Amino acid sequence: MPKSWTSGGFELHLDLEPGVGRRAALERSLREAIRSGRLAAGTQLPSSRALAADLGLSRGTVVQAYEQLLAEGYLTSRSRTHTEVAAVPGARVRTQLRSATNFSVPYDLAPGNPDVSQFPRSTWASALRHAVTIAADEDLRYGDPRGHPQLRRALADYLGRVRGVRISSQAIVVCTGFTNGLRLIAAALRDRGGRVMAVEDYGLPFHVDAIEHAGLRTETVRLDDDGLVVDELPNADAVLVTASHQLPWGTRLHPARRGALVDWARDNNAIVVEDDYDGEFRYDRQPIGAIQGLAPEHVIYAGTASKSLAPAMRMAWLAVPERLLEPIVQIRLLSERQCPTFEQLALAQLVDGGGLDRHLRRMRTHYRKRRDFLLDALATSVPQVRPIGIAAGLHVTLLLPDGTRDDDIRAVLADHGVGAHPLSDYARAGTAPPGLVIGYATPPGHAFPAAVQALVTALAKLV
Amino acid sequence: MPKSWTSGGFELHLDLEPGVGRRAALERSLREAIRSGRLAAGTQLPSSRALAADLGLSRGTVVQAYEQLLAEGYLTSRSRTHTEVAAVPGARVRTQLRSATNFSVPYDLAPGNPDVSQFPRSTWASALRHAVTIAADEDLRYGDPRGHPQLRRALADYLGRVRGVRISSQAIVVCTGFTNGLRLIAAALRDRGGRVMAVEDYGLPFHVDAIEHAGLRTETVRLDDDGLVVDELPNADAVLVTASHQLPWGTRLHPARRGALVDWARDNNAIVVEDDYDGEFRYDRQPIGAIQGLAPEHVIYAGTASKSLAPAMRMAWLAVPERLLEPIVQIRLLSERQCPTFEQLALAQLVDGGGLDRHLRRMRTHYRKRRDFLLDALATSVPQVRPIGIAAGLHVTLLLPDGTRDDDIRAVLADHGVGAHPLSDYARAGTAPPGLVIGYATPPGHAFPAAVQALVTALAKLV
Repeated sequence: MPKSWTSGGFELHLDLEPGVGRRAALERSLREAIRSGRLAAGTQLPSSRALAADLGLSRGTVVQAYEQLLAEGYLTSRSRTHTEVAAVPGARVRTQLRSATNFSVPYDLAPGNPDVSQFPRSTWASALRHAVTIAADEDLRYGDPRGHPQLRRALADYLGRVRGVRISSQAIVVCTGFTNGLRLIAAALRDRGGRVMAVEDYGLPFHVDAIEHAGLRTETVRLDDDGLVVDELPNADAVLVTASHQLPWGTRLHPARRGALVDWARDNNAIVVEDDYDGEFRYDRQPIGAIQGLAPEHVIYAGTASKSLAPAMRMAWLAVPERLLEPIVQIRLLSERQCPTFEQLALAQLVDGGGLDRHLRRMRTHYRKRRDFLLDALATSVPQVRPIGIAAGLHVTLLLPDGTRDDDIRAVLADHGVGAHPLSDYARAGTAPPGLVIGYATPPGHAFPAAVQALVTALAKLV
Repeated sequence: MPKSWTSGGFELHLDLEPGVGRRAALERSLREAIRSGRLAAGTQLPSSRALAADLGLSRGTVVQAYEQLLAEGYLTSRSRTHTEVAAVPGARVRTQLRSATNFSVPYDLAPGNPDVSQFPRSTWASALRHAVTIAADEDLRYGDPRGHPQLRRALADYLGRVRGVRISSQAIVVCTGFTNGLRLIAAALRDRGGRVMAVEDYGLPFHVDAIEHAGLRTETVRLDDDGLVVDELPNADAVLVTASHQLPWGTRLHPARRGALVDWARDNNAIVVEDDYDGEFRYDRQPIGAIQGLAPEHVIYAGTASKSLAPAMRMAWLAVPERLLEPIVQIRLLSERQCPTFEQLALAQLVDGGGLDRHLRRMRTHYRKRRDFLLDALATSVPQVRPIGIAAGLHVTLLLPDGTRDDDIRAVLADHGVGAHPLSDYARAGTAPPGLVIGYATPPGHAFPAAVQALVTALAKLV
């Protein structure tokens, strides 16, 4: 058997040009790789012994080639055994491992992110380590496209206990965020001949984009103070609804409307997609349960870890009626197959061990204090703005005096370094009243009072 | 401010029916939740104090309701403070956290999985812990849909060094497995008006399904001993090719064909999708570099951790030509946004720290020994079967004597408990010669000799 080309050191791919001497070919190949940036400055080369074995050359040939390139400045050497690519003018520099930081406004009050500075890092690191340790070898292979059975069981228990969801673990699909789940749902409905998904006339624009990219049309349905005006639902295959805390209005769907919505789904053989993005966060009373519990055969319940833990986890889950399970699983297989297994096992442990409950309780207190602080500051300094919606979730919507223009809102927010969105950014049809959607969860603790102060100052200019 | 409903213990959602006494309503609600299976046997209830606070009831009311349900057998109590749901006939049982095991044949020689018993668990656990520790808070929010900048930089360096890929980290897209990447590519081509992706006439059936589900047609192109017959490529927008190690034939694309393929792409303004699924594994010589290095503007290089580490990681990466980057990123945003961040940071550390190189070297030796052992056993016991392809990857294809029927192959494999696939399972057009595709990586070490023995015994029946 020939000697393996992999005898030691870092790996390196080189093509040696035929028809020239081996040493010259090696030198040219290395020069080209360095000049083109394929080998970046700082990359460590294999030992001359290893590279010689890899390429089937004598060690002397490699040593001579290395020495030539050292002399030419392409390589640099910190010791007899450490040769690395030098910083050649124009070539690429190998960037050291470091944490990236995002550009952001000084006072980030845009909705969408939880307070990630409170992410339970040590708990999660332990859960991940445990997952890597206890996973069966079989768990490391291709697995169930619905997600790992342990996580599905844990979620079925959790959702039943906390959100009133009635579902078998067999019918849970773990996905990489709600948008991923929404795409799976829309594509599955389309594959079955569906054409239209109704949406609330205020919401996240990219949800509409995801639904339409998957091949369904959307139709908007009006909201009032009691949430979606169910009477006005069109002839649709499904409706997407934020029932426990409307995004962005912050209202809840009135109990009578919940019943009417389920009746509509039954009558039209349609699906209610219940986007329960922040259903765990209610501050004045126990949250109302999921609509899914009223009619499991007509509602897809969707939950997520993005608001309860962190968006970067990319973990969400669907509770799917029997008849849509197989179509969704088929699309899953052809789209991304499954979620990463270790993270699923870690989340199962967090849920089963009560770690998620503990974190949610802690965060609920945290956010409730923030919400009270924000509303007190507003009531004191800019009583003309009117907060609307229930005491829940991670955002509050403020109505501004009639006549305030969106252009003014954007300009004044920018002047004060405040990140927040005009209500009109969420409007899908018609015009929005002047308003502002404030995410009070995002800033870390030390920055929150300053962010609220900056907001209040900005609002004082507007009203 | 009212007292929070979240004062302690596990969380529990209950709806109290109006119009009956509070204690009766609580009892009914608990009974219904247990009987319906929403609260599974073994679920721990909140303390009476906590539940009373949550529901706005007196503690005595909750204590009485608990006592009533204990008496009725719906609840059980291990101590004064621990009340849990009892195993009620017909109700759901809460399954304890345990590792799942998959059903599988006794001698699993089906291709597709690496030897996951060699997965570097402690290295990966350390890398994950490090990632959870060093991640910036900003990293836990929504991030770059292409993947974390650190991982993209690490992969750009690695792919240039090991596979001859020429790419900026700006143009790498981290995805959740190759199928996910293939879907993104096919959908992006379709969005730009593309209609056809050519495929090799042998390959994985679900790749064709993924391409077609994303909206492109496929056309098959013939293979010969030098790989894809480039002269016969149709008028297509792209071609999917396993150039370094054809799946399943095990051949490599001839150097002259590589050049011709790139010329075809240039002439037709088409894209070569290079599925480099096991490009790191070559046993007799250094692997030939990626085609991408010849024409970065016409090739999408696709690599994966599925064979080098484990499929369950769901980590793969695309090196994307400039003009397709934005369309792919747009679909990414509407499909799953990004991969989980901690796993990306951990992989960046594994790559930058040399841990992946070390693992690959170790596995290369491991698999080469297995391949030699298998081929020796075949040559000794069933010399009539003919192994084909280069010494590379995790599978070998065997041609069986003319006239051997697929039905016989399947029956004899089943009789001997051997998991492996007839060559015809990979045929997309026309008929396949009698053959067998053997994945020699899957069994753990202790099971490998027995698996080879079972295979040899089965083959002896067939030839």
